[in-house]
Amino acid sequence: MNSPTVPVKTRDDCIALDRADRLAIWRERFSLPRGVIYLDGNSLGAQPLATAARVADVIAREWGQDLIGSWNTAGWIAAPQRVGDAIAPMIGAAPGEVVVCDSTSINLFKVLNAAWNIVTSEARAPLRDRIVSESDNFPTDLYIAQGLGALLGGRVRLDLVDSASIASAIDSRTAIVMLTHVNYRSGAMHDMATITRIAHDAGALVVWDLAHSAGAVPVDLHAANADFAIGCGYKYLNGGPGAPAFVWVHPRHHDRCLQPLSGWMGHAEPFAFSPVYAPAPGIARFLCGTPPILSLAALECGVASIADAGIAALRAKSLALTTCFIDMVDARCGEAGLDALELVSPREPAHRGSQVSFRPKGKLVGETYAIVQALIARGVIGDFRAPDILRFGFAPAYLRFVDAFDAAEALADVLATREYADARFQVKAVVT
Amino acid sequence: MNSPTVPVKTRDDCIALDRADRLAIWRERFSLPRGVIYLDGNSLGAQPLATAARVADVIAREWGQDLIGSWNTAGWIAAPQRVGDAIAPMIGAAPGEVVVCDSTSINLFKVLNAAWNIVTSEARAPLRDRIVSESDNFPTDLYIAQGLGALLGGRVRLDLVDSASIASAIDSRTAIVMLTHVNYRSGAMHDMATITRIAHDAGALVVWDLAHSAGAVPVDLHAANADFAIGCGYKYLNGGPGAPAFVWVHPRHHDRCLQPLSGWMGHAEPFAFSPVYAPAPGIARFLCGTPPILSLAALECGVASIADAGIAALRAKSLALTTCFIDMVDARCGEAGLDALELVSPREPAHRGSQVSFRPKGKLVGETYAIVQALIARGVIGDFRAPDILRFGFAPAYLRFVDAFDAAEALADVLATREYADARFQVKAVVT
Repeated sequence: MNSPTVPVKTRDDCIALDRADRLAIWRERFSLPRGVIYLDGNSLGAQPLATAARVADVIAREWGQDLIGSWNTAGWIAAPQRVGDAIAPMIGAAPGEVVVCDSTSINLFKVLNAAWNIVTSEARAPLRDRIVSESDNFPTDLYIAQGLGALLGGRVRLDLVDSASIASAIDSRTAIVMLTHVNYRSGAMHDMATITRIAHDAGALVVWDLAHSAGAVPVDLHAANADFAIGCGYKYLNGGPGAPAFVWVHPRHHDRCLQPLSGWMGHAEPFAFSPVYAPAPGIARFLCGTPPILSLAALECGVASIADAGIAALRAKSLALTTCFIDMVDARCGEAGLDALELVSPREPAHRGSQVSFRPKGKLVGETYAIVQALIARGVIGDFRAPDILRFGFAPAYLRFVDAFDAAEALADVLATREYADARFQVKAVVT
Repeated sequence: MNSPTVPVKTRDDCIALDRADRLAIWRERFSLPRGVIYLDGNSLGAQPLATAARVADVIAREWGQDLIGSWNTAGWIAAPQRVGDAIAPMIGAAPGEVVVCDSTSINLFKVLNAAWNIVTSEARAPLRDRIVSESDNFPTDLYIAQGLGALLGGRVRLDLVDSASIASAIDSRTAIVMLTHVNYRSGAMHDMATITRIAHDAGALVVWDLAHSAGAVPVDLHAANADFAIGCGYKYLNGGPGAPAFVWVHPRHHDRCLQPLSGWMGHAEPFAFSPVYAPAPGIARFLCGTPPILSLAALECGVASIADAGIAALRAKSLALTTCFIDMVDARCGEAGLDALELVSPREPAHRGSQVSFRPKGKLVGETYAIVQALIARGVIGDFRAPDILRFGFAPAYLRFVDAFDAAEALADVLATREYADARFQVKAVVT
């Protein structure tokens, strides 16, 4: 579907949009609690209906009855590749190029190191000792780069710049450009092809974190000529809390790149039990330890829950939803209001991921956390990202236009009534 | 219970032992397929009955209904510490010293690196550039050490020696001694306290892999004055296929050791979203990415399935089972027979883990894989470890003395009838 050409104003407008939505039936594939508008699928995706039965079968039959034999008979050993192949079309990768394993952080460590090994082994003049990234990148990405830097004894330095300065920060000292495609806080999306070209022109390699892209935003790693990518299984891929992550490497790098987490599942012959590591051909060398089968089974259901919706259709609906939501919040809580919400996400659809973020202004400064809590108490679940971001994720597979309408109404009401000022919304939980 | 003082000869002897076994009722806590004698719990532990309902609840209620809120309300965020605390008493660790996360291979990388940082920062003279390990250590441990060595650009070398030569291989150039407490192939157990003392006397640190120990063999990390330990969740801890692993660090090292997989879950304030890594106090800095909640819930059930049996009682039963099995196989298939099985595991109980391994001799050379397959076809599940080991794990929580008897009988029968020579047992599966 296309974005509505005239601003959506009423709940009836939204109901009409839902009726016309070819993806509306997708919602029926998910378990969604009654009375809840779930705008946090960019943090933890909702649960596909198929997951419970699949995991129950893995437990009762595959593990419970067939025990160790299931590594062969139930295909456990091939699960990292099988689920990787299911993710591949959503990110513009070919079969055999993606594996699922470990966490996003761990996989980032692997590919950063692999990229570093390639750049430094090529002895490209002049000295390259910089990893360029964005100051507002998701913290774990920065922490992992810092950990690698410490391990390499200061031979590599992390250069953090703001989003607008990335292209100009890439120069002949840049070894690696490490970016998250869609920013977790603002929802702003980088132009993958352009930045990759600039990096390559400067002789650097690029690592893309697709945590907030895979499953919601079209990604074409081959068309962008990217080098490395990693991503998250538990956001728009609906794999469940802490689901394994994925890793992609361009085939041109496969056989020349080594990663240091060289566990036995990445060995050319894991069951030969040789004492000497020999990397498996291709992407399999990015595997490390024994795969977590229960979590992989849930992730497989998550990927399947959106795979045949088509990423183009998901993207079109996502943009329509976020555009509607922005328009409706603008109309109710925008700059014209006494206590305003400033849009942090790009207003231009092409530059926006699948979320909408606001920053409270005026009398609302300092109240972001409480506003989120007041909305949660009403069943509208968004989240707070320190220090002052109010974040709403729009997973297009299971959200409706009426959800966007009702959320905007609830938000306006929470602000108008100053409901957020209630003491119970002011106490922070451990995880926010 | 104590080991039987006279050799067990008949099935009735075994039934009597089962009747006298205080741990016999523990078997009722597990889901075990009918007609199967499962002697592979050292590869993949059997399933506790409680697991299916617990994971179903995590899926239906915690994830399905409460969604993102479960990080707080269901205690997901504290699961790595909570399950770690449940494992701690089995390995002689104190509360707050163990966390559960990632895989054994990944955790080994963390602690090897942390140990390396400590040793090299202390500038202990003379130069220390060796990691001493056992040639027959589990391959992934060797591969991880090799990966770290490559990353450190040749500043550390892996010295592999045979089991008997470890003490003499530790010298003033040794930085780290890295050993698996119970050997995966032979079942031989190292003397943790003695080797740790020798390493410390030489100025080195020690990393223990407890993969084949935790849950079956008493381990007292504090009494041994160990430095680092890691271990596996899916063997004797019954956590399910690919369950997360654990990591322990002696408190004297906690605040001075950094590990390079510095993901956000190991940050002092993960939800402050600071761009600069600051390690959490204590063992929490060994966490990396978002914890896999489904797999952690299953592991929590696995740990609970044996926690209150008491490790001393489990060990006593394990030794009684393995001693019986050795005696019975000796009597039927030992050196006196035409086609003999040579015991590879230590005959002395104090030096043996919870498994029994044999190496076929005479006409049986080259038939190990087929013998294992013929036994599996009869419902007696042991495994093959290349190149020629026939391995039987005895998980004391759910095995009976009659199982040991029936397995010995089946083994003798497979050899006597040359059942293994059947063509269908000669074709190797992917995973063996």
